[in-house]
Amino acid sequence: MERIHVNLGSESYDITIDRGLLDRMGPLVRLALPQAEKLAVITDDTVDGLYGERFEKVLRGAGYEVRRIAVPHGEGSKNLRTLGEVLEAMSAFGMTRSDGVVTLSGGVPGDLGGFAAAVYLRGVPFVQVPTTILAQIDSSVGGKVAVDLPSGKNLAGSFYQPKAVLIDPELVRTLAPRYIHDGMAEAVKYGCIRSEALFRLYEGLHTDEDIFGALPQIIRECCRIKAELVEEDVRDNGARMLLNFGHTIGHAIEREYHYETYTHGEAVAVGMVLLTRRTEALGLTAKGTADRIARVLRALSLPVTVEAPASALLPHIAHDKKKRGRRITFVALRRIGESFLLPVEGERISELVETGV
Amino acid sequence: MERIHVNLGSESYDITIDRGLLDRMGPLVRLALPQAEKLAVITDDTVDGLYGERFEKVLRGAGYEVRRIAVPHGEGSKNLRTLGEVLEAMSAFGMTRSDGVVTLSGGVPGDLGGFAAAVYLRGVPFVQVPTTILAQIDSSVGGKVAVDLPSGKNLAGSFYQPKAVLIDPELVRTLAPRYIHDGMAEAVKYGCIRSEALFRLYEGLHTDEDIFGALPQIIRECCRIKAELVEEDVRDNGARMLLNFGHTIGHAIEREYHYETYTHGEAVAVGMVLLTRRTEALGLTAKGTADRIARVLRALSLPVTVEAPASALLPHIAHDKKKRGRRITFVALRRIGESFLLPVEGERISELVETGV
Repeated sequence: MERIHVNLGSESYDITIDRGLLDRMGPLVRLALPQAEKLAVITDDTVDGLYGERFEKVLRGAGYEVRRIAVPHGEGSKNLRTLGEVLEAMSAFGMTRSDGVVTLSGGVPGDLGGFAAAVYLRGVPFVQVPTTILAQIDSSVGGKVAVDLPSGKNLAGSFYQPKAVLIDPELVRTLAPRYIHDGMAEAVKYGCIRSEALFRLYEGLHTDEDIFGALPQIIRECCRIKAELVEEDVRDNGARMLLNFGHTIGHAIEREYHYETYTHGEAVAVGMVLLTRRTEALGLTAKGTADRIARVLRALSLPVTVEAPASALLPHIAHDKKKRGRRITFVALRRIGESFLLPVEGERISELVETGV
Repeated sequence: MERIHVNLGSESYDITIDRGLLDRMGPLVRLALPQAEKLAVITDDTVDGLYGERFEKVLRGAGYEVRRIAVPHGEGSKNLRTLGEVLEAMSAFGMTRSDGVVTLSGGVPGDLGGFAAAVYLRGVPFVQVPTTILAQIDSSVGGKVAVDLPSGKNLAGSFYQPKAVLIDPELVRTLAPRYIHDGMAEAVKYGCIRSEALFRLYEGLHTDEDIFGALPQIIRECCRIKAELVEEDVRDNGARMLLNFGHTIGHAIEREYHYETYTHGEAVAVGMVLLTRRTEALGLTAKGTADRIARVLRALSLPVTVEAPASALLPHIAHDKKKRGRRITFVALRRIGESFLLPVEGERISELVETGV
């Protein structure tokens, strides 16, 4: 069993990682939510079908009254209307301020359920049980919860820390291969921005079984890096922005293709490579870095380029929600394992975005 | 000019109170929101008609680009759908994280707009400019922001502190008399729970002009008391619960009459008197206290009893969102100016609720 302490003062919590942990989560949830009598398990219909009943039994065994709230799977559920339905279901269950929420899911019900916990009665405690690689290495750590608005992703949300994150790497075995690789794109990002040792581990992965074998170690290292960055910068104004490596262009790709053609991880994969080719050309990044990233990503069946021209992506970047005033802050690499913030003023943004490789 | 500092560590802010302050708010808003280029003014159609253009000019004079977002007046706007519309309007205005929100309103757009500020891009800074007595003495201080759900009031919200509260007592002159008295019910509550001197001031008010004359002093004292309680207890688990005096029964009255017959202040007025009659009878409160409160409330044209029997109110109390597990915590008086928490278990709650006076 691996344990990572996320040190955020009064909002500190532990991440626990272990194969087969799901069936042993009862006492860990009780430790994190000692006062609760009722637990709402917020999940989606797919995950509920796979693990819902089994997990409910685990929680009942820890003495809780449990209500599973399953939203339709996919990004389409991540909106204010579904949030309202989840909150109404929590209210109908009779939850008070001392009760709690557990999210059992990939990113969408995790973000939605975490936001529901953040706002129900102005905040009830919650525990995250992520079930995808992406959620296990990234979105379950750091307290960013949100829903989408019609005009953009994650535009309504909170910073709200869980009381615990409980990770069972075995749960990802039910994922389709595309979503295993999707999650690995973010894992590669962590190596790029902060750990060449972790990046070298990826250079040794050749099959999906290699990935499963290394997964506890990958999750631990990614969570450790994310915890470090979040501890430095809970409110996402400084160090934590390094996590956006590949994301400014990645988000633009997702928007240009209406969130249909590319998964988030695939878009970020392309974004990391395209940006690094440009920063290499501008002399900001060690030569050969982009090729090294592209090699690892291709071995993970991830794309490293898009058809769309830069001129199609630039308008989406101008609308990026990370924008402050007229400036965009890109994240660039000096070399694998070392990243820095690169603020760029409006008219020079196009120098950083080229797609014709 | 009166200034009260609300000391909440990194979330500290000032409340500034002065007659005619509206036209001089520009530099104070700039001090509170130094980085912002764009300001969304969230208000309702009534207040917008009275003060919207004038206030927009004041803010433009301080160098901001301004967009007024006016929701329909009344509690009907305090829901997730209207929140979504406000957030979309903020997004369409192109607001980034360094921009800000100003709420110009009574309680509803204040709560709604504060919640919009709390969740837009996971939080943008905001300033409150309350325009009713109730908002000036109570809801603009303390960082409680929320919307209603179909199943109950204020069920979705946050604790989110403003960067400043700017109060012009002259703005309440456009209120209908009923809403002046409505606000005064909460003002009386502050005297009851924490200041006999303030309560004695109320015993000297005979006309609405008396109220207007004393208003800066009343606002200052109520804000001072609320600031003290909020400083002790931002998360509403201890001292701040004293602010619920009259509210457990008051909320039940509002619910029983479907929020139509009684305003919030009227229901709280009845709640303070009914509960204090019972705690007097049980020997917990000095004799004569309930009559003294009732006298002040009647002079303010406020009700002190209801037709509904206790048996109609009790089911609403069982559903109170302040409930923790099976226990309700009432707030009772030892005497005028001195209050305490009175936790009551399920089966004994009915002893505290009697309406047949």
